[in-house]
Amino acid sequence: MNNENYINLLNKIDKDLLKIYNKGPKSLLKTYKYTFSGKGKRIRPLLTILTSKSIIGNYKYSYNAALAVEILHNFTLVHDDIMDNDSIRHGKKTIHEKWDISTAILAGDAMLAISLNLLTNSNYDYKIIESFNKGLLTVCEGQALDKEFETRKNITKNEYLNMIEKKTSHLIAMSIEIGALACKLNKKDVEKLFNFGVSIGKAFQIQDDYLELMSNSKIMKKSLNSDILLGKKTYPMILCKQIDNNYITELMEIKDAKKIIEKLRKFIIENNIDEEIDETINKLYKEGLNFIKPIKFKNNELLDFSKLIKERKK
Amino acid sequence: MNNENYINLLNKIDKDLLKIYNKGPKSLLKTYKYTFSGKGKRIRPLLTILTSKSIIGNYKYSYNAALAVEILHNFTLVHDDIMDNDSIRHGKKTIHEKWDISTAILAGDAMLAISLNLLTNSNYDYKIIESFNKGLLTVCEGQALDKEFETRKNITKNEYLNMIEKKTSHLIAMSIEIGALACKLNKKDVEKLFNFGVSIGKAFQIQDDYLELMSNSKIMKKSLNSDILLGKKTYPMILCKQIDNNYITELMEIKDAKKIIEKLRKFIIENNIDEEIDETINKLYKEGLNFIKPIKFKNNELLDFSKLIKERKK
Repeated sequence: MNNENYINLLNKIDKDLLKIYNKGPKSLLKTYKYTFSGKGKRIRPLLTILTSKSIIGNYKYSYNAALAVEILHNFTLVHDDIMDNDSIRHGKKTIHEKWDISTAILAGDAMLAISLNLLTNSNYDYKIIESFNKGLLTVCEGQALDKEFETRKNITKNEYLNMIEKKTSHLIAMSIEIGALACKLNKKDVEKLFNFGVSIGKAFQIQDDYLELMSNSKIMKKSLNSDILLGKKTYPMILCKQIDNNYITELMEIKDAKKIIEKLRKFIIENNIDEEIDETINKLYKEGLNFIKPIKFKNNELLDFSKLIKERKK
Repeated sequence: MNNENYINLLNKIDKDLLKIYNKGPKSLLKTYKYTFSGKGKRIRPLLTILTSKSIIGNYKYSYNAALAVEILHNFTLVHDDIMDNDSIRHGKKTIHEKWDISTAILAGDAMLAISLNLLTNSNYDYKIIESFNKGLLTVCEGQALDKEFETRKNITKNEYLNMIEKKTSHLIAMSIEIGALACKLNKKDVEKLFNFGVSIGKAFQIQDDYLELMSNSKIMKKSLNSDILLGKKTYPMILCKQIDNNYITELMEIKDAKKIIEKLRKFIIENNIDEEIDETINKLYKEGLNFIKPIKFKNNELLDFSKLIKERKK
């Protein structure tokens, strides 16, 4: 798929997301419209769509499910932004910041309801509903672990990987799985694709942690400081602590988030942590590709897009 | 069903609700256990169960769905309590009051996810999943209208009835509908039962509004003042305003919620509003019964229980 095709597909997704919910209480229509007027990367629906395209050459069976996945993802963002006290998302004020917490709670709940109804109104297969419901519970559990880690001092690499598998990778893998289920792909290959999704999902989250710390907030278009202030356990933080726990622990006690970030960046470069992160991402990506090696695709669209995700700079 | 049977069934529901979620992050297990250690009235699961009993004489097919309905209902309570700033529920601190808002948001989200997974893991019919998803969206829309009404001065009776139909009656009706769907009852009779549920659900909410205002908080076991302070549009309030809008509007500007309640109670008695409310409840109840008159039940368990609900004093 060339660049122009991507842009056309993204525009179509953005336009259709806005159409899904257009009758209902004004307060819900307002927050729904506000959320989907924002420019998300739409990685999850693209994964659903491109999985279908790679398997059967088109995405007509999975398109509504792809939109449902994106709406589900946005439900998690709206609620997580309240919990994490984030004020900016995709360059715009978060819902609880623009209105208030009650509005944001209900906006998120409604989005989740809208996504579930989109699935059942589109008469999707029971397996897709099952996958979706399981994904929802898993992402809640991942967020719970992420919050639990905030108040714990030392988190191991394995604990971190288990947390991001639930919080991020599972939904990435589910997006791919649903794209495959909509094409009635056999169970074994669906499983392979799911495992591929888990691996690239982990790579995606590690890269996200890294970019969040190393880029400035204008590029990432979300607030940079809140993770630091909340004591979030990110992958770079865990690697830093492995090298010098005392130094990093003392560093985190400084009251100035900008200063902490500056010193962390310096520490990461000096200790080649950026290289280690790069290696981990590449390893996970390769591990993912191995899972799907036996599958014969009609084209490379899913693989090309996964490569694009891996190489993103924001 | 005699009183002892009710108590046994309630105990079974309470015990089984606690069993549904017993593996997961500590923070979620803690809030789930806390919520379902509380003594709810379990009206919705009882409606599901007794509908099935009335149709086929047992509830083995609908039992897990009944639990799912109760978990869904509790998700709405946990989030509504944040939005409405309620600090007491079933005689215990609400989750956001005992812990914090983030904990309560995630606890609610997880409950919803748990209820959805209970349905799909129990392999329920697609129609039940559809009904459940639709119920979820409707209850969100009802809550949105309820919040919108807080900042509006005058709400008509019809606007109020439309709001409670979405916020309360739909879920009551859905509980009955799911009990019928689990018995594979024919479409027309399922519809009749649903309509019965909408009518008794409206009666239930009007009575709830009335009891909340007229009982003291120890009996209702929830905080009495928050509705008044938020400017909630309840049925007694709408009737009071119809009689003397100016007096009630001035009354609501008093800063002391207890004083407002005292004066409202007096106004209600003096103007026979309590009798009007009683008539409305009886009318809705009769209307409901008319819908299901043509249905031949195996026993009177659903009808007897509906009567019990109508005559409740808390």
